[in-house]
Amino acid sequence: MFEKIKITKIYLRQGSEELLDKVVIEIPLTIILNNQELSTLLCSPDKLKELAIGYLVSESFISSKADIKSVDLNEKTTVARIETNQPLSKEELNKKRIITSGCGRGQTFYNYQDFSGCRPVEAKLNIEPEVILNLMAEFQKKSVVFRETGGVHSAALCQGDKIMAFAEDIGRHNAVDKIIGEVFLKGEETKDKFLLLSGRVSSEILIKAARLGVPLIVSRSAPTNMAIKLAKQLNITLMGFARGKRFNQYLP
Amino acid sequence: MFEKIKITKIYLRQGSEELLDKVVIEIPLTIILNNQELSTLLCSPDKLKELAIGYLVSESFISSKADIKSVDLNEKTTVARIETNQPLSKEELNKKRIITSGCGRGQTFYNYQDFSGCRPVEAKLNIEPEVILNLMAEFQKKSVVFRETGGVHSAALCQGDKIMAFAEDIGRHNAVDKIIGEVFLKGEETKDKFLLLSGRVSSEILIKAARLGVPLIVSRSAPTNMAIKLAKQLNITLMGFARGKRFNQYLP
Repeated sequence: MFEKIKITKIYLRQGSEELLDKVVIEIPLTIILNNQELSTLLCSPDKLKELAIGYLVSESFISSKADIKSVDLNEKTTVARIETNQPLSKEELNKKRIITSGCGRGQTFYNYQDFSGCRPVEAKLNIEPEVILNLMAEFQKKSVVFRETGGVHSAALCQGDKIMAFAEDIGRHNAVDKIIGEVFLKGEETKDKFLLLSGRVSSEILIKAARLGVPLIVSRSAPTNMAIKLAKQLNITLMGFARGKRFNQYLP
Repeated sequence: MFEKIKITKIYLRQGSEELLDKVVIEIPLTIILNNQELSTLLCSPDKLKELAIGYLVSESFISSKADIKSVDLNEKTTVARIETNQPLSKEELNKKRIITSGCGRGQTFYNYQDFSGCRPVEAKLNIEPEVILNLMAEFQKKSVVFRETGGVHSAALCQGDKIMAFAEDIGRHNAVDKIIGEVFLKGEETKDKFLLLSGRVSSEILIKAARLGVPLIVSRSAPTNMAIKLAKQLNITLMGFARGKRFNQYLP
């Protein structure tokens, strides 16, 4: 996840020193779906299979484990080849390419129709504030790569007072997709689970959570107004700025 | 840039209170290039014209001001229509769509060939550490929306000891594209200027800076190893963790 690179630390009016510093690794992961190059994600080099599958779920290329015929990850070339049972034609694929962005950037494949296809989450979860704040503290302790480099985001799936899955990535969206992929591959139930995030919650992150089916998202950072609106529509409880001894709840 | 929303602040073992809190606004900006829908960016609602143009420059749809025939921004529907002098065919457009991602997410239109078309920056800049750290302090003070909401990134273009252009956005990439668009529309020289960033520096941010032609990037946050490698290849000086009285320089 990181490598050591020679850097110069420069101090105001106190000169400088050369030293080895830990820097996060960024690699390209190319996703080839049914022999068509779909996308290249820039990401951190772990849980690549989970990332590829989570991305396909997020972009609604697959919706059940039965859709997947095969997954072949070449760790050396960082190419993931996925075969599904009902491949899209080139035209359907190009139609899907239009609309919307990640991190305010680029294309993702879902569109507002896809979003309107997201069903509101039916489950409700009541987690005590103390449990949430304890989990957030544990979550931060687990973010080893962040502590070492300051260069990644993290996401975790929790049940009760336990962290069940954890992922780090240079991309906010990728960290969530890794969790989605892991849950999807294991075929786990999610309506009794909730998501912890280090990063800001934009509409896209909210839609990912809706696809995952969790009724609660807790972030260390800020949500956008669009994320709050979507959370209400999708019946997802959204909490932000969960740090130390307090958090904000954005009420439905 | 932000609106007030009723939230509940919950304190550990000290109950809760309802209050109005400032939350960043997220809107979709749809870019229509020569009557073809190109992309919808999720962004903060200011400098939308600059964002649309900056995005087209970043994705190498336009390379000089003379390429632009017209720019029409509808502030109400948040749709930007741009006409250029040499429109791409639908096929060329779809070919351009493959490859690479933003924030580890989605599609952007440039590809590695495009990148290899980036020329190394020829200019050199020697800025005193004191000037850099003073500018970073001023840069942070200017980030009003961040202070109010914690929900945006910022970017600035500097010359000597002055901030010449400043932009905030919910997306790291958008903030840089707003600066690129502003510089492009004004037809300004950039080789004697440098970029300040609040956010992490990944390869995509580095490539944007290369397109902008600045010889120096200073960020408050961490770079990735790929950004450091590209900076060396493109002859761009990269500084990270510029806070308080020190920063790191990633040496070519």
